[in-house]
Amino acid sequence: MNKTLSSRINNLQPPEFFINGILNGDIAILSRAITLVESTNEKHKDLAQKILQGIVKKTGNSFRLGITGVPGVGKSTFIESFGKEVVSKGHKLAVLAIDPSSNKSKGSILGDKTRMEELSVMKNVYVRPSPSSGTLGGVAKATYETILLCEAAGFDFIIIETVGVGQSEMAVSQISDFFLLLMLAGAGDELQGIKRGIMEMADSIVITKADGNNIQKARSAKVQFESALHLLQAPESGFTTKVETCSSLENKGIQEVYALLKKYKEFVVANGYFVHKRNKQQYELLLNVIEENLKQRFYSDPEIAKALKKIAEKKQNDAIVPFTLGNELIRKFFGDK
Amino acid sequence: MNKTLSSRINNLQPPEFFINGILNGDIAILSRAITLVESTNEKHKDLAQKILQGIVKKTGNSFRLGITGVPGVGKSTFIESFGKEVVSKGHKLAVLAIDPSSNKSKGSILGDKTRMEELSVMKNVYVRPSPSSGTLGGVAKATYETILLCEAAGFDFIIIETVGVGQSEMAVSQISDFFLLLMLAGAGDELQGIKRGIMEMADSIVITKADGNNIQKARSAKVQFESALHLLQAPESGFTTKVETCSSLENKGIQEVYALLKKYKEFVVANGYFVHKRNKQQYELLLNVIEENLKQRFYSDPEIAKALKKIAEKKQNDAIVPFTLGNELIRKFFGDK
Repeated sequence: MNKTLSSRINNLQPPEFFINGILNGDIAILSRAITLVESTNEKHKDLAQKILQGIVKKTGNSFRLGITGVPGVGKSTFIESFGKEVVSKGHKLAVLAIDPSSNKSKGSILGDKTRMEELSVMKNVYVRPSPSSGTLGGVAKATYETILLCEAAGFDFIIIETVGVGQSEMAVSQISDFFLLLMLAGAGDELQGIKRGIMEMADSIVITKADGNNIQKARSAKVQFESALHLLQAPESGFTTKVETCSSLENKGIQEVYALLKKYKEFVVANGYFVHKRNKQQYELLLNVIEENLKQRFYSDPEIAKALKKIAEKKQNDAIVPFTLGNELIRKFFGDK
Repeated sequence: MNKTLSSRINNLQPPEFFINGILNGDIAILSRAITLVESTNEKHKDLAQKILQGIVKKTGNSFRLGITGVPGVGKSTFIESFGKEVVSKGHKLAVLAIDPSSNKSKGSILGDKTRMEELSVMKNVYVRPSPSSGTLGGVAKATYETILLCEAAGFDFIIIETVGVGQSEMAVSQISDFFLLLMLAGAGDELQGIKRGIMEMADSIVITKADGNNIQKARSAKVQFESALHLLQAPESGFTTKVETCSSLENKGIQEVYALLKKYKEFVVANGYFVHKRNKQQYELLLNVIEENLKQRFYSDPEIAKALKKIAEKKQNDAIVPFTLGNELIRKFFGDK
């Protein structure tokens, strides 16, 4: 635990303190609650769950936009321009950044002070990095709970940003209403830069830096992405995946992206997919929690841990029958027979 | 259950019948034991585990070769030629085929009578399709147990064949000593035809159909694959991933593949990786079994199933806190508090 965190929680406030603060839109208290949600300390976890129970009825009232793209694609510049557009439409905007490299570099996404410098100081904007320690499931859980806290504090537009290089995109697509992939117009090999799986998760692709000498390249990339998308399965939402071009520099195409999201939301609210997807996401998060928990209980049982250690340390190649042995350990754990 | 299977097991023999038969190399009894290993019937499963316990000490004495490649790459032709080479070296050869499409097409890999027609009738050769019903873990388990049975019956060279289109390659790489990827020399886009992840699992790549007008293309593909492999992480075995070309038609390059495998085995036996990898695979299979089992027990608990069904059927978008609810269900299941 770092010093700031330990001094903050030396004197833990009761859940009501946090619940009331968040519902009143107090940003300092919101930030402290998010820190609790991210903590691995058992007392913090307990308190965080009580806070979440206290605010959960006031959540859900936002549009959750996941954004990914490889480093260099211009994510922060895009979010800066796009975020201003969102705020100009009267939204309260929270930007959460999941940074898979934050353990090493102490927060490379938002540690750089020059990132989103205009946006981050605007009224009605809250920018928060999410240290993505631990498993994919852990990242999804902490970020999902952070979304709930932000919604309860009145933020009705949430951007969840991640770098398209690790597995965090999976986590983000698991908690977003809409998943936006930013891409660069490259030199012919449009499909090389990003893992194919990510393209399949995208609800829309936006080609960035479509300005100056780049315009023609961006236009032909748009055509190529569109034909690539045609090869993929139609999205479950029923909404056709769009490819747009934009220039954050010249502020072109930004309003179009906002209009696209608005149209998407109307479309999926009308056909019921919006609620269906959120319920499905919640259910999957629930199963993740359950399965992590089951494994944790099993593997931390002293007898089981001892038996598994013995097998893991085996140096000889004496075969076992995994199914038989696995069943034996399960029966031992549950005290059957 | 189909008719053949049900008539076979109307009168189940005791485990000793199967154990003795297998250890005596009786192919008919081996085949029946494999059918038991693949069955989902509880009585069959029990019997299968007893048989496996009875033969497990006589297993391990084989080289397990996984082979994958997209349809059209010439897998069966390659296995026909290569299998003859293996047998000519004095091995007893078993060929197991995992066919992800077998549920639909009733065994498209080996259903075609013309496949491996010379090999399949040779002395010291046993060819067996594996219906790959169910999960990835289920496929790996059934195929692994089939390997153990074949080894106990005296087969000392096992080929596990799969189509490089589903997830069954993962299962095969989890139970092979060596994973061989067959590829075609294509028209420039050498990396497009196969998922990248598969290339990273390969211990070697063999370019098939390197004959006639194809020779030059195959040679240049070899160079391209080699440079692509250089970009990937060095394999854990310490053995450099090789790219070979071969022609099953002209019987060229087949002996070289056998020589390569022999060299590989000597190398990894000497550096300890052979045993290390098998132990690691066994351990992973064990954890798969445990985790499947834990989930199965949890989700089939009537109270849990009822609670989850209620959540899954929820139509409204009323948010829950997955972590809190998951923990509650876990405590309910274990009877805590």
